[in-house]
Amino acid sequence: MPEVRQDLLMGYRVLFAPERATRPCEHTDVVTSLPLECCPFCRGNEAETTAAVLELPAVDARGPQDWGVRVISNRYPAVTPVGDVDALRATHALSAAALGVHDVIVEAPQHATSMTSLSAGQFRLIARAYRQRLRTIRDAGQAVHASVFKNNGAGAGASLEHVHSQLIATSFVTAAVAQESAQAERHFAATSRCYFCDLMQHELHSRERLVFETDDFVCWCPFASRYASEMWLLPRRHRACFEQLDDAELDAFAAALRDCLRRLDRALPDVAFNFVIHSAEFAAASSLHFHWHLEILPRVMGLAGFELGAGCPINIMLPEVAAAALRAAM
Amino acid sequence: MPEVRQDLLMGYRVLFAPERATRPCEHTDVVTSLPLECCPFCRGNEAETTAAVLELPAVDARGPQDWGVRVISNRYPAVTPVGDVDALRATHALSAAALGVHDVIVEAPQHATSMTSLSAGQFRLIARAYRQRLRTIRDAGQAVHASVFKNNGAGAGASLEHVHSQLIATSFVTAAVAQESAQAERHFAATSRCYFCDLMQHELHSRERLVFETDDFVCWCPFASRYASEMWLLPRRHRACFEQLDDAELDAFAAALRDCLRRLDRALPDVAFNFVIHSAEFAAASSLHFHWHLEILPRVMGLAGFELGAGCPINIMLPEVAAAALRAAM
Repeated sequence: MPEVRQDLLMGYRVLFAPERATRPCEHTDVVTSLPLECCPFCRGNEAETTAAVLELPAVDARGPQDWGVRVISNRYPAVTPVGDVDALRATHALSAAALGVHDVIVEAPQHATSMTSLSAGQFRLIARAYRQRLRTIRDAGQAVHASVFKNNGAGAGASLEHVHSQLIATSFVTAAVAQESAQAERHFAATSRCYFCDLMQHELHSRERLVFETDDFVCWCPFASRYASEMWLLPRRHRACFEQLDDAELDAFAAALRDCLRRLDRALPDVAFNFVIHSAEFAAASSLHFHWHLEILPRVMGLAGFELGAGCPINIMLPEVAAAALRAAM
Repeated sequence: MPEVRQDLLMGYRVLFAPERATRPCEHTDVVTSLPLECCPFCRGNEAETTAAVLELPAVDARGPQDWGVRVISNRYPAVTPVGDVDALRATHALSAAALGVHDVIVEAPQHATSMTSLSAGQFRLIARAYRQRLRTIRDAGQAVHASVFKNNGAGAGASLEHVHSQLIATSFVTAAVAQESAQAERHFAATSRCYFCDLMQHELHSRERLVFETDDFVCWCPFASRYASEMWLLPRRHRACFEQLDDAELDAFAAALRDCLRRLDRALPDVAFNFVIHSAEFAAASSLHFHWHLEILPRVMGLAGFELGAGCPINIMLPEVAAAALRAAM
């Protein structure tokens, strides 16, 4: 029998209807990949892209051109680099030039199509690139806020298959973080505690939705999961912004993210997914109420009219069931 | 150069980046339709479905079995029919049985796969079915609120191709309507005017986003459209709930909806789309601040990590461009 759950922080409701997974479907969605003759993200094809804004040397680099992670400007940007810092402040009209930074983070020099095939060392390098670009954009005043995210697979909106993620830095705080932050601020005003720290303790105590824990990170499937096998990864240490991580924490994040994605790949082989880092705006790094985290959104079911038009997700898998499968996957 | 627009009512921001429509893509998404041997929605196959909760006779009916629109209970419901009205009130806990009604409205007895192939008379019959089911559910106290929506095409989440829409009636107001209503209530408190009535006057005056107008309905592409060729259809007469429409208004709605969908089909042939009716909760029919309307969401681009994870749509078409094409389509 279907169940409705409400998210304690955000108030949204999710309908859980596992029986819907078995309904007949007349449509088979076949994605044909026709790789470009010359993948612009592969080592050796650097001339096919815009100039790098950051290159980190490969773990076993034998020369200066031997990059391990390469960050370039998106050739089809959703925002335009800002001319001067003052221009950012002019973007609060109802309509304005969309200013900011739109990076593509090429996550491996070889033509890998899945992040799970990358080594632990490569994940550490990727995490360094995320942090370094966020710090550079923050320090240069190029944006107010930034989102790092990944589209993995055609069903998750990826247009090129070579492993990459993206960074969009904007003159405004994105809706997801603005809403979470506003609600978490209310929780803090009422309790003097961080909602996310409280939630982590609750999930560690109940364990029924826990996927794994390490010394530095905790991963669970949220109570009102909007997506089948949705996972949240949170640092134990309260910090508002991702770019505040020190080297040891960053390495621990890289290992935990790799663990998440390998579990997902074993539980749901080749599933398309998105992930996104929710980090506070740069100026709110000392926030006591916002706690940065990463959300993984597997794209098992298509999004239809009730999800998009009425704002009510229908999920075919309870998080307790998903978490058990993800725990057993490693 | 990309542009950012903010929705005046809801505050969400949309990035407009038309250049992104031309980016290379390695994936081709081919949907293969393998129709079921026996379509359960076709006339003659009624035994394949649950019993009808409503049948409206065909325009040219020659006998009692000659239905034109048939409403059945969804065999894979997202909510369960409520045992008694009091049970509805118990569903405000964080987790509860999902109570309500989940109908499938079979929109034609013959195996049509596109609503645009249906006659004006058939659209009137469909509109009657929507209204009658909403009134029945309201009067029986089976739900607090209801959404009528359509998934058209595999890319919009449809699992069966025979033309149909759905009605999900719930014990709660869906997030989209709750948020619109709360914001519109603030506008009313400040101005003593309905936001939607004000917006309609603005769009009728500026005309740059107007698609068409009739004596009873106005259709335009919203200023901060989240989807390419997104359309809103509003009744000129202020009413909070769809089921309040009288017969003449209902027929005018049917004609206007048919006009919308035929324009969309000409401008973007065979595009997948969703539509959803935003109607106030049953008990708020006399609301002066909420104004029912229909939203059409064409699914031209896939939804990726920035849209879903950061809550920021990226749209490849400005509404002024979309409206010009939709105006020229008829």
